[in-house]
Amino acid sequence: MEHAPEPRALKPGRGRRRAEDVRRATLTAAAELLLAEGVQAVTFAKVAAQAGVSKMTLYKWWPSPGALAFEAYFTAFRETLAFPDTGDVVRDLSEQLYAFVDLLGRNGPVVAGIIGAAQSDPDLAEALSERYVLQRRALAVERLTRAREAGQLRADVDLESLVDQLWGACYHRLLMPAQPLDRGFVDHLIGNLFRGIAPGGEAS
Amino acid sequence: MEHAPEPRALKPGRGRRRAEDVRRATLTAAAELLLAEGVQAVTFAKVAAQAGVSKMTLYKWWPSPGALAFEAYFTAFRETLAFPDTGDVVRDLSEQLYAFVDLLGRNGPVVAGIIGAAQSDPDLAEALSERYVLQRRALAVERLTRAREAGQLRADVDLESLVDQLWGACYHRLLMPAQPLDRGFVDHLIGNLFRGIAPGGEAS
Repeated sequence: MEHAPEPRALKPGRGRRRAEDVRRATLTAAAELLLAEGVQAVTFAKVAAQAGVSKMTLYKWWPSPGALAFEAYFTAFRETLAFPDTGDVVRDLSEQLYAFVDLLGRNGPVVAGIIGAAQSDPDLAEALSERYVLQRRALAVERLTRAREAGQLRADVDLESLVDQLWGACYHRLLMPAQPLDRGFVDHLIGNLFRGIAPGGEAS
Repeated sequence: MEHAPEPRALKPGRGRRRAEDVRRATLTAAAELLLAEGVQAVTFAKVAAQAGVSKMTLYKWWPSPGALAFEAYFTAFRETLAFPDTGDVVRDLSEQLYAFVDLLGRNGPVVAGIIGAAQSDPDLAEALSERYVLQRRALAVERLTRAREAGQLRADVDLESLVDQLWGACYHRLLMPAQPLDRGFVDHLIGNLFRGIAPGGEAS
């Protein structure tokens, strides 16, 4: 069986694009499609056309359009959602969560649509998990681990559960809306955990 | 314009069923359909057939099949998810949340499917909000308010944010799975909040 030769991805005035450039252009195109039209719009054909790369390349590099979509999403927001480390965990978590709720304020419906679609599409669910959820959780736990090592969290705190009580609480307000998802909410989330909610439990 | 007379809903050996009986039979049938086949299966036609009531009655009583589905869901789990009040808020929240994660352990995929479908269906989203989310939140806040009045929570705690950090954290593990959604998780959620996560913030 013969395979058609892969068309060269060319930029004007340059030779064959380096793999890294092709990869970046692909992720950018996928992220744009995702944020503009939702996860169903991210097909290999559309992304290939928009990025000016061959569909064959996408098939080689990503197991599914969903995997491409979520890697694009993760990459697009990596800087916005970076975890600062000034040494003050309360301030750093606040800044990161402010950026997160600001982002959900802009792109909330798209993000909700992505998570919603994953509930009835096992391939999409796997892609969301492997290309987004697990990586974001690992970054959060990494920052929380440093805080614990620095003595800013109790030694016996279960860090994974904090991910659900900070970022998960925000996703809850996004997906089952009832109350504002804003910076004031972030302050409550952090305050509840660091001060404790029992009387006399104030650490401040 | 003439309306067809509404067919009588009859049970063998009895006269016209009382409205309350019809309502209960309808909600039971809707809940069974919802849990067996998901929210898309809850149509007025199917529920009417299964409950032995007229479709016209359902049109009169519920604005949409989604509204019926979520009222049925709320009703079906009202007892399971009741908020005990023994006077000990930590124990009561634990018991309620144990029941909640047990329920998600049994019916998790259906619940996730419901919330997922609501993300791309505005009518379903409205029904979920009005017939489930707002009512469940109100019940939780009611129990938390009594705890605060009893001096078991700091006076300045924002109760709405606690809903997101307890039940919302569980929904997060359901919808974006990565870690176990079990009773041990519930213990962490409650412990993080009541003890606080800062060193020296232990209330216990």
